[in-house]
Amino acid sequence: MKPITVSVVGLGQMGSALVAPLLRGGNAVTVWNRNKEKAAPLVALGAQLADSIENAVKASELIVVCLSSYDISDTLFREPKVQPLLSGKTFIQLTTGTGDEAARSAAWAKDAEFSYLDGAIMDYPAAVGTAGCLLLASGPEASYKHYADHLRLLGGKFTYVGKNPAAANHLDGGLLTLYYATTFGFLQSAAMLEAADVSVETLKNAVDSFRHVLDKTMARATDSLSRKDYTGHEASIVVHSYGVQTLRDRARLAGVDYSLLQLFSEYLEKTRDMGFHAAELPATFEIFRRTR
Amino acid sequence: MKPITVSVVGLGQMGSALVAPLLRGGNAVTVWNRNKEKAAPLVALGAQLADSIENAVKASELIVVCLSSYDISDTLFREPKVQPLLSGKTFIQLTTGTGDEAARSAAWAKDAEFSYLDGAIMDYPAAVGTAGCLLLASGPEASYKHYADHLRLLGGKFTYVGKNPAAANHLDGGLLTLYYATTFGFLQSAAMLEAADVSVETLKNAVDSFRHVLDKTMARATDSLSRKDYTGHEASIVVHSYGVQTLRDRARLAGVDYSLLQLFSEYLEKTRDMGFHAAELPATFEIFRRTR
Repeated sequence: MKPITVSVVGLGQMGSALVAPLLRGGNAVTVWNRNKEKAAPLVALGAQLADSIENAVKASELIVVCLSSYDISDTLFREPKVQPLLSGKTFIQLTTGTGDEAARSAAWAKDAEFSYLDGAIMDYPAAVGTAGCLLLASGPEASYKHYADHLRLLGGKFTYVGKNPAAANHLDGGLLTLYYATTFGFLQSAAMLEAADVSVETLKNAVDSFRHVLDKTMARATDSLSRKDYTGHEASIVVHSYGVQTLRDRARLAGVDYSLLQLFSEYLEKTRDMGFHAAELPATFEIFRRTR
Repeated sequence: MKPITVSVVGLGQMGSALVAPLLRGGNAVTVWNRNKEKAAPLVALGAQLADSIENAVKASELIVVCLSSYDISDTLFREPKVQPLLSGKTFIQLTTGTGDEAARSAAWAKDAEFSYLDGAIMDYPAAVGTAGCLLLASGPEASYKHYADHLRLLGGKFTYVGKNPAAANHLDGGLLTLYYATTFGFLQSAAMLEAADVSVETLKNAVDSFRHVLDKTMARATDSLSRKDYTGHEASIVVHSYGVQTLRDRARLAGVDYSLLQLFSEYLEKTRDMGFHAAELPATFEIFRRTR
């Protein structure tokens, strides 16, 4: 991998975590943050502190941005003194945002004649720089290819999602949705088990052995949605509906919150009422998908 | 492993799947089902067909039961002609049911002087007999130890949950809750991504790289709940609340169902209103757990 000049703008928890892996890869790293104190530990590692955002942009061919919002990023980079300095460079936006924000930024980059990638780090800051860290990016194929090795320093599982600059943010939102569903599903379970004197450690150990079933379920749903075919031989919507009602009633009787299971029960009833009595579980996709 | 005599009562999809692994282990397997036709393929594999439930019980030291409900099981086994035949034997109930049903069955077994294990198969019928299949059981420790090798033929990940006969069914319910949360979270994501022209296959591939984050999240929640400590440095309830509201708004703007994300947003607001502004995500456990 050819060493490059790279500037990291925004030194919150995630932005700061980007610096060490880039330095370890032999790159010349410049950093900038509104609050200069956050740069001190990174300067100790070998990063250069830029005294202005202009100098941070001037210093490098690749500008990596990780701020609190796209609005803050716009405030910094769309300044008349800063924007022209981006011309010909590559900008990767790792700030958390929406697909629309990514699309708007890509249009701006086109006008300002620089290359724009939009990305998302799908892991905790402590995992940045590890082989298992998932980093998503979307935008011009040539830019991603040019810097793929450098981006892989940040996340070993660097994944190019496609040319549409909004794709990485959309996928980010999809994975976060699953993250919250997993968390709240786990906590709902833990509450039901606590009421029955079964420990959360026992639940966690069982989940470790059960995880491949969860993976299989998502793989089957993927296959079913791709083929637009909800038939199968595992269990019908009616069977699932009965099963989820039983879980909801157990939670209610145990005195724990059951709103999650109540909602799941409603999903299954709605799916049944759409005529999918005998279909498999992925048929519930029909109640989630866009209807207008 | 010492070969034993074992009877399988109930030959639905799951019951039928139990027979071949027991035969492969060198055991003498007797089968019984109300509808005799379901036994034919199992007899072809080497199982004996009992002509009555009495003879199915007489034939074996271990009685494995997998029916549609505990009520059906009671109707068969609590008959005056059948119940006395169970005396001194071991009965493992794999029928899906609640903790209360398991406790009631255990009390009956004590009266009728046989050993009672309650279990649950946490996988698809096709996975029965594989190394990865999770089989839960709870009840008397001596019985589980005596038949552990035989039960491991059915599920390589055989797990003894404890003496309380209800524990396996409670854990079954907890894992199923997580199963539905994963499924509906995945379908919610798939719907949001479909609206943005990102394929479900792209989502599935990203989930494969993201899975370790989901595992880490559950491990952290386990640790947090065990220590009764919701402090940390990843992200506060306020930050999560803002993030989930953004996801909900994205889903709504995309025209997809957003009731799941709306509920998640409410969980976070309630947790914040309980005074956990600065706590980490597992603090939401406080709104799920038993309050009376």
